[in-house]
Amino acid sequence: MSRALITDLYELNMAASYLRRGMVGPATFSLFVRTLPVDRGFLVSAGLEDCLSYLEAFAFEDEDLAWLAGAGFPADVVDAFAGLRFTCDVNAVPEGRVVLANEPIIEVTGPIAEAQLVETYLLNQVTFQTAVATKAARCRLAAGDIDLVDFALRRTHGVDAGMAVARLSAIAGFAATSNVEAARRFGLRAAGTMAHSYIEAFPSEASAFRAFAQDLPEHTTFLVDTYDTLAGVTTAIGVIRDLGLGGSLGVRLDSGDLVALSGEARRLLNDAGLPQVRIFASGGLDEYELERFVAEGAPIDAAGIGTKMGVSADAPYLDSAYKLVAFGDRPVMKLSAGKVTLPGAKQVWRRRPIEEDVLARRDEPGPAGAEPLLVPVMRDGRRVAAPESIDAARARLQGDLDSLPAEARLLRRPVVPHVQVSPGLDERLREVTETLRRAGSGEG
Amino acid sequence: MSRALITDLYELNMAASYLRRGMVGPATFSLFVRTLPVDRGFLVSAGLEDCLSYLEAFAFEDEDLAWLAGAGFPADVVDAFAGLRFTCDVNAVPEGRVVLANEPIIEVTGPIAEAQLVETYLLNQVTFQTAVATKAARCRLAAGDIDLVDFALRRTHGVDAGMAVARLSAIAGFAATSNVEAARRFGLRAAGTMAHSYIEAFPSEASAFRAFAQDLPEHTTFLVDTYDTLAGVTTAIGVIRDLGLGGSLGVRLDSGDLVALSGEARRLLNDAGLPQVRIFASGGLDEYELERFVAEGAPIDAAGIGTKMGVSADAPYLDSAYKLVAFGDRPVMKLSAGKVTLPGAKQVWRRRPIEEDVLARRDEPGPAGAEPLLVPVMRDGRRVAAPESIDAARARLQGDLDSLPAEARLLRRPVVPHVQVSPGLDERLREVTETLRRAGSGEG
Repeated sequence: MSRALITDLYELNMAASYLRRGMVGPATFSLFVRTLPVDRGFLVSAGLEDCLSYLEAFAFEDEDLAWLAGAGFPADVVDAFAGLRFTCDVNAVPEGRVVLANEPIIEVTGPIAEAQLVETYLLNQVTFQTAVATKAARCRLAAGDIDLVDFALRRTHGVDAGMAVARLSAIAGFAATSNVEAARRFGLRAAGTMAHSYIEAFPSEASAFRAFAQDLPEHTTFLVDTYDTLAGVTTAIGVIRDLGLGGSLGVRLDSGDLVALSGEARRLLNDAGLPQVRIFASGGLDEYELERFVAEGAPIDAAGIGTKMGVSADAPYLDSAYKLVAFGDRPVMKLSAGKVTLPGAKQVWRRRPIEEDVLARRDEPGPAGAEPLLVPVMRDGRRVAAPESIDAARARLQGDLDSLPAEARLLRRPVVPHVQVSPGLDERLREVTETLRRAGSGEG
Repeated sequence: MSRALITDLYELNMAASYLRRGMVGPATFSLFVRTLPVDRGFLVSAGLEDCLSYLEAFAFEDEDLAWLAGAGFPADVVDAFAGLRFTCDVNAVPEGRVVLANEPIIEVTGPIAEAQLVETYLLNQVTFQTAVATKAARCRLAAGDIDLVDFALRRTHGVDAGMAVARLSAIAGFAATSNVEAARRFGLRAAGTMAHSYIEAFPSEASAFRAFAQDLPEHTTFLVDTYDTLAGVTTAIGVIRDLGLGGSLGVRLDSGDLVALSGEARRLLNDAGLPQVRIFASGGLDEYELERFVAEGAPIDAAGIGTKMGVSADAPYLDSAYKLVAFGDRPVMKLSAGKVTLPGAKQVWRRRPIEEDVLARRDEPGPAGAEPLLVPVMRDGRRVAAPESIDAARARLQGDLDSLPAEARLLRRPVVPHVQVSPGLDERLREVTETLRRAGSGEG
């Protein structure tokens, strides 16, 4: 797939105009989320690694250029596109950090045509991946001691989305994924049990359980709800005893009242002298169901979390934006109804616990004892460090979640930490607003 | 990307067991949606073309096999995977058809290991694409005479999703897409205007408008809301007159009360003798906003529909399932709480208008005057016809929408057409239920 054409047509139109006019002065664009979705007390930044890979390889291929010429782009523009590479500087919040509304996640500074052309891709990746990473982190927060497994691939928005979801759920602390290609690609643990179809392909549930345990002794989690859940548990107990099965054993409950059924299943297993057999739950689960399992003391050891995490079902998109905040030596902003932006390049300063971040001009000193969230990740279009491991992002997220006040971690009606605008940024905002109002929009 | 490993681990486990046991008897799996999301009176089937491309090329590559061996799959299983190809027959509902709950969209019949292995991919594509095609069709139904343009790429769940969304919106009757790569790949019309950043990169809105019109005379839709919308319209009028612009001209409104602003903008343009300048609306639009534009008579000529269509925001997934319905000569079903399936291979019969479909055994004759929805699309793992054009799917959808009762097309509280179970299918359902209950689940 072409990289340079993965964009909205207007990016190419604007870049064409900039290149024709020799407008190569450095611009800064800021990517941020304007407002948090309902019931989100924080977001988890994600998508940066894919953005950096894209930016490093950004170029128009010969076939792209031929298509653009055929689509009516003039020869001088096509020639300018041919030599264009991404040479900007990028500051960004690393993956796994807690971020809040209006905090820049990525800032791109460089020739305006280059910085403009990559808008669509950067928004696409950061919006989607941050939404899903946040949802996965909420599941992990709600799950207490329950191990979580990514089951989302069958209902993500395409296969590429499924691969990203597996990686993001690992960053959020999931223990494994059902997605085999993702396990291979990212070095994750693959996990899986059996489907109802397997049970139905045998003359009886017991014969299916026996066959599976014989063929796959490493993977013996019995799906017990095809016909009657508790009868299925009893059947599993019988097969475990008959075959003398050892190792890692489990039963999976995929329908019905999972709190009640897990309690009954646990009792049956314990009464049979099988306390080591784990109970695995699945079926439309999300952070709200996990919270209920924990609150009601359901003896569930592990859970498969699929669709609702993988599409971030209650917040499948974020109100993200990629806005020009400076051009040449001039901070800029827009005044559109409800969409006012903060001018100039920025830094976000954080202290622990995370009760109030400070959003500041990039050139201001930070508050005492505060840590900057935005760090240099590209200089002149090249990464400043090798790609990060999933472990690094996971550890960073754990650190930030541990520093969040309990009320910000609530699943419903959380209290979002405050984002304070620094005195320097506030002054710049007032200056630029005044300049724009004096100039008038239609008189220049 | 490996094709065969784009799957859940349990598919590989089950296939391994079937292959070891020589269980090669033909199975039939049925892919359907169990329930419609809230406020959906119908679904639009989609995803089939991508499924067929995947199935035709299905194979384990050498590196897949090496990885599986390293992951603990026994040598005999890896050898069996090495020679495995997809040789099943597939019946399916073509893309663009209206489908309802419990109506099979795809039925796969063939060796059980092959039919099982492809579950995850088929569910992924049909679930996501059907959800988005349905959302896009709802937008098109609501939009009256307003032309629609796909603006979704920046917030779809990844880039591949964005490409699919562009194609699906074209099937739904959208006039163009902002997505350049999709325009190239699918032969769609690319469309785009300018961003606020472009305006801000110039000393004034007027100088930005002049520059854009000079550089891109083919693409002169002026974004007028960067500072003050109606002042922006006046500025655009001035530039159109100063430069003597002709051809296809427009102004884009991207914020504020679009109904009121479009009325004011229309009046300003008409008073300036520019009735031919079109008004383009954008900014978080969906079918509900489009319905309001039409109801309130807003003079909007075209609209960009992005995020909410591209992620199917109010229904980002469907309650889809891929269920074994027959194995060997035996129809099968499961009895899990709330997830009972209908046994056996099926056909769906439709009369026009679409007031009641009939869900029947595949081997039953259809009702007089009814048309079968499921048609053969693969025999022995090969397509029976070349891939369809977008135009063919679009025409099919238009025909089905024209045949839907008005109350099924309502955006809120629609009346879903009935799906009647045929006498033959009802009899089979009762027989299989009785057989399963008699046998008991845990006694075999």
